[in-house]
Amino acid sequence: MALQFASRMDRVEGSVIRELLKLAEKPEIISFAGGFPAPEFFPVEEMKKVCTSVLEKEGQKALQYGATEPLPALREHIANIMSIQGIKADPDTILATSGSQQGLEFSAKLFINPGDVIITESPTYLGALNAFKSYEPKFVDVEMDENGMIPEALEAALENTENVKFIYTIPDFQNPTGITMSVERRKKVVELANKYNVAIVEDNPYGALRYEGEILPAIKTFDTEGRVIYLGTMSKIFCPGLRLGWVYAQADVLKKYNLIKQCNDLQVNSMTQRECIEYFNTNDIREHIAEIVKVYGQKKNLMVETIKKEFPASVTYTNPQGGLFLWVTLPENVDASAVFEKALQKNVAFVIGQPFYSIGDHKNHFRLNYSYQSVEEIVEGITRLGQVLKEFC
Amino acid sequence: MALQFASRMDRVEGSVIRELLKLAEKPEIISFAGGFPAPEFFPVEEMKKVCTSVLEKEGQKALQYGATEPLPALREHIANIMSIQGIKADPDTILATSGSQQGLEFSAKLFINPGDVIITESPTYLGALNAFKSYEPKFVDVEMDENGMIPEALEAALENTENVKFIYTIPDFQNPTGITMSVERRKKVVELANKYNVAIVEDNPYGALRYEGEILPAIKTFDTEGRVIYLGTMSKIFCPGLRLGWVYAQADVLKKYNLIKQCNDLQVNSMTQRECIEYFNTNDIREHIAEIVKVYGQKKNLMVETIKKEFPASVTYTNPQGGLFLWVTLPENVDASAVFEKALQKNVAFVIGQPFYSIGDHKNHFRLNYSYQSVEEIVEGITRLGQVLKEFC
Repeated sequence: MALQFASRMDRVEGSVIRELLKLAEKPEIISFAGGFPAPEFFPVEEMKKVCTSVLEKEGQKALQYGATEPLPALREHIANIMSIQGIKADPDTILATSGSQQGLEFSAKLFINPGDVIITESPTYLGALNAFKSYEPKFVDVEMDENGMIPEALEAALENTENVKFIYTIPDFQNPTGITMSVERRKKVVELANKYNVAIVEDNPYGALRYEGEILPAIKTFDTEGRVIYLGTMSKIFCPGLRLGWVYAQADVLKKYNLIKQCNDLQVNSMTQRECIEYFNTNDIREHIAEIVKVYGQKKNLMVETIKKEFPASVTYTNPQGGLFLWVTLPENVDASAVFEKALQKNVAFVIGQPFYSIGDHKNHFRLNYSYQSVEEIVEGITRLGQVLKEFC
Repeated sequence: MALQFASRMDRVEGSVIRELLKLAEKPEIISFAGGFPAPEFFPVEEMKKVCTSVLEKEGQKALQYGATEPLPALREHIANIMSIQGIKADPDTILATSGSQQGLEFSAKLFINPGDVIITESPTYLGALNAFKSYEPKFVDVEMDENGMIPEALEAALENTENVKFIYTIPDFQNPTGITMSVERRKKVVELANKYNVAIVEDNPYGALRYEGEILPAIKTFDTEGRVIYLGTMSKIFCPGLRLGWVYAQADVLKKYNLIKQCNDLQVNSMTQRECIEYFNTNDIREHIAEIVKVYGQKKNLMVETIKKEFPASVTYTNPQGGLFLWVTLPENVDASAVFEKALQKNVAFVIGQPFYSIGDHKNHFRLNYSYQSVEEIVEGITRLGQVLKEFC
């Protein structure tokens, strides 16, 4: 007889991206699939000093168990990072997580009974959809325009749906579309959350990575009733391999995240916490971000210019002012999966759009990442992709 | 209006131990409460070399995202560690987790629909109970004697209970009692799991830490139908602060754990994985364990000798052959909480027994850890505790 698993497992799926990342490891492939930061910005030399220093100063503590609450100095540094988007954070209500992915999973665990509703942007981050699905929610998706979720559509969703627990949004340089929510709409989302008594999970990995225009205040800055749960991460501004993210929420809500963290894995790596503290003590994170942003902006511009030259005119795309991704829309009759297969034959990869939708058929989109590949590879890869697209459009 | 949380959160509790660990941080307290390994065995100097070497050899990869599957070399080393208890592991079906705590949480997520049953030893590890509770199981507990779960009691539980999903056991030097399951009973537990079509979650953090007698084969070695899920960890044989544990299971089951890991936090820290590989490449883990075991054996003996001298004769205790804990039983009318309060006034701490039980009133027990404190503190702390106990017994 076979073992019987929980019914939630019927809905747990592998991430298409994670599978693609395996493909992308082949050296001959130019992959625009992952959300990998450019590795040349990882401070390898500084990290050598940092690790040595941490182990010299408090080696035993760095290798021992610690409290579930992150170290106070780490919380101070995280609060400082959040201030880039105008948040005046209380360091006491910050919890460190294993990447912001864990903050997403915890959010569903905290709020979702089977059948409860999560409102998402359409499309949205597929890793969030997968994390949420394991708690058996229903999804209601809200259309976006170039300024993010359309407030009328959001209010209609809130008005017509029972048991909505939270609105999930990536306000800055959204994954996968690159769209940024306007300040006006940020205020409006908070207003609607207040009116309909739901939480907002603000997933904000890219907010500081703006290379055009002014950095916008986080949705959290407009929170009047403690409804906004802010998820941040070191992954895009520092090093994703260290798996350090955070949850910032008001005290009573944060306490529940803390309990979930305890049950899940007790605490974030004691050594990693100290490495981050030491790095941020001895390096200016704003300068580091400024360096990253400069290059990402150049890469994005290069990708957009190359697309303009190489893609058929019937193909449209977003032109983000920050972040890591842009979003391509094909003519309605063109299936991005078919394009993907042909592209792979030419050793170019991307992520098809369908898995970023919680509901419905959306076959004519795909996502391109421009942070990871070199400028030469961007030009070469986009040129090859243009050739493939000309067969379809 | 207040936010509405999922009903599972009503059952999620903070760990008494984690709260006690905060107390125990006061320098004047001699704490036998935590399950902290002795920090003097943490290889601080080696870790300096290890970190530098990892960052020199593949710094960018160590700081970048990686696959959910742990690195092949890490899996090989983990398989080697499991061979200490006779497991001939296929490295392909090992998943790295953030400590074995995460393996426990994932096990409940994988198997438990609300109301499903987990069979546990009585008492059992409270961190497991807390992790499991968040998936709303029922618990059925099985009495132990000095050889672990009593097979007749286990069979009665399996026979009389519907929807049992798994048997949770810590076969070696159990937390909290220090009891070890006999080889005969290990075979019997597998036989019963086969007969009643349930899984076994074998939580085995201490199996290699034996200082008397012969190391026993893991329950996993008797697994005939792929029902045993083995959870291991580096926490007690290497460094808990690194948060590296693992799940070893047959391929189809492991695949589901992998999906859960993806949803939860993508992967274990890329740097930590490489640190462990580098450490195990350049150091003999068996030698390292032998050093730890020698000292823990001495500490245990010292604690037992001191107890013999200082505790009232009406107090009984286990005398484990390995691991980190022993279990004290007071006369039935004595409440360990009252003893705890008095002990704290004398700056000695332990963990009361009640939270280690899933069901029922069990007020007259407490757990003592002997790995963390120095020999001087063991003598002083147990002597003070003896004085307190004489007021009660």
